Amino acid sequence: MTQRDKADQLLRLQQPHSSLLLPNAWDVVSARLFEEAGFAAIGTTSAGIAFAQGYTDGQQISRDEMLSIIARIAAAVRVPVTADIEAGYGHSPEEVAKTIEGVIAAGAVGVNLEDNTGILKPLYTLEEQVERIRAAREAASNADLLLVINARIDTYLFQIGQEATRLEDTLRRARAYLEAGANSIFVPGVIDPALIQVLVREIPGPLNIMAGPGAPSAPQLFQLGVARVSIGGAAMLATMGLMRDIAQELHTQGTYEQMAQHAYDFTAAWKLFQPNN
Amino acid sequence: MTQRDKADQLLRLQQPHSSLLLPNAWDVVSARLFEEAGFAAIGTTSAGIAFAQGYTDGQQISRDEMLSIIARIAAAVRVPVTADIEAGYGHSPEEVAKTIEGVIAAGAVGVNLEDNTGILKPLYTLEEQVERIRAAREAASNADLLLVINARIDTYLFQIGQEATRLEDTLRRARAYLEAGANSIFVPGVIDPALIQVLVREIPGPLNIMAGPGAPSAPQLFQLGVARVSIGGAAMLATMGLMRDIAQELHTQGTYEQMAQHAYDFTAAWKLFQPNN
Repeated sequence: MTQRDKADQLLRLQQPHSSLLLPNAWDVVSARLFEEAGFAAIGTTSAGIAFAQGYTDGQQISRDEMLSIIARIAAAVRVPVTADIEAGYGHSPEEVAKTIEGVIAAGAVGVNLEDNTGILKPLYTLEEQVERIRAAREAASNADLLLVINARIDTYLFQIGQEATRLEDTLRRARAYLEAGANSIFVPGVIDPALIQVLVREIPGPLNIMAGPGAPSAPQLFQLGVARVSIGGAAMLATMGLMRDIAQELHTQGTYEQMAQHAYDFTAAWKLFQPNN
Repeated sequence: MTQRDKADQLLRLQQPHSSLLLPNAWDVVSARLFEEAGFAAIGTTSAGIAFAQGYTDGQQISRDEMLSIIARIAAAVRVPVTADIEAGYGHSPEEVAKTIEGVIAAGAVGVNLEDNTGILKPLYTLEEQVERIRAAREAASNADLLLVINARIDTYLFQIGQEATRLEDTLRRARAYLEAGANSIFVPGVIDPALIQVLVREIPGPLNIMAGPGAPSAPQLFQLGVARVSIGGAAMLATMGLMRDIAQELHTQGTYEQMAQHAYDFTAAWKLFQPNN
């Protein structure tokens, strides 16, 4: 499959009334293991990639380093890869366009683009973010690729503004972002079924919800009309929890019970990376 | 602590009758989590690093890429780091010396150096490996660093030669490697207590045994006289097993039970990488 085929495929997978379940990888091995499990597409997690490389989340990693890891992941799997590029690694539409060019060069066929100016910081105004999304779409068109732009709205995740106007603000942004060239709308931080149903009804495009421990199951989310479910950094945080538990047990008791619980065969690991796998 | 202080500290930690328990990291986050658990030193795992980057084990990764990851790990933790450099990324003593220079530049203070010519391939002759260890020691001396050279003997791991002569061959190599400048001897693939006792008694230097699921506990190994216990790729394989289980559950049921079992708090992850942690 060419990159163009993969972009088309990803777009087909996330139409309204479809149910795209997207695991989020942070390195080559997590991506390969997700592919082996049968997922039709794979996302990346900026938090997971940042942690694996020793950064906090929120664009502390450089655009180039993030792109280099996205490229490795995209090269390692056959399925379409969509990249979490945070807020685009730059404020201006030109900087966002530059990041999009890098994402396409890295072999990914989709992006998540956030509308925050930093973690827990204010959002870009609707007009600013519209310009940034337009620049992303234009950069993709210039490369003749139907890049899947998943526009992330952080009103709920960062609890922006008054609660009374949050839904209205979110819906206004969603419509404007779709008009500006986004293919889908991502509202992380929302797991309440009633609110999800309102978002599904009011947003004229596919809705992405972030799942994981504490959230409704993926089938339940699809039942509510969600078109795309992703897991953010949840799988990475789970492996960090296991590493912490392994480390504590090894340090305090010198035993390997936690390691044995999820043992993966060395030969299977080997096969995972055979060139002709 | 300077690099020289760290090298001296690592050497002190692995004297005969001491008990150095060394977890093996494959990226920055695993190294930081091991450090947080309280380990006094950290090793790297070539298999884990290879898998995380999408290679099979056995020097499929390039020397430069391996060194760049060792450098990131060494820069991310305060404790001494000893690097698994497989068989030195080159056959000749000159190539081994070049790798050692790179390891020292990367900030590590110890190495594992193997005597195999490839995975499950023949070993270097005793004389060849002695020359390679001498070259490693000389490169470290030229940098004025008491680099801790842990000489790995693969007679048991790869079941080299006749069983009847394997012990004798191993002991001959151990003595020659120590004379050539190694500080300790690593015999992976041996977990039988009776054999470990023979190795402890007959090898005139600290013995490193590879532990993990199936092996005696670290305290039991220290009781047998082992000076240094490391875990190779076992922790990495465990996280791969968890990822596989998470992926299977998510793909088949759309639920997050496996993710929830080892959840690591996002805020804690954040703190792990604060510059002043």
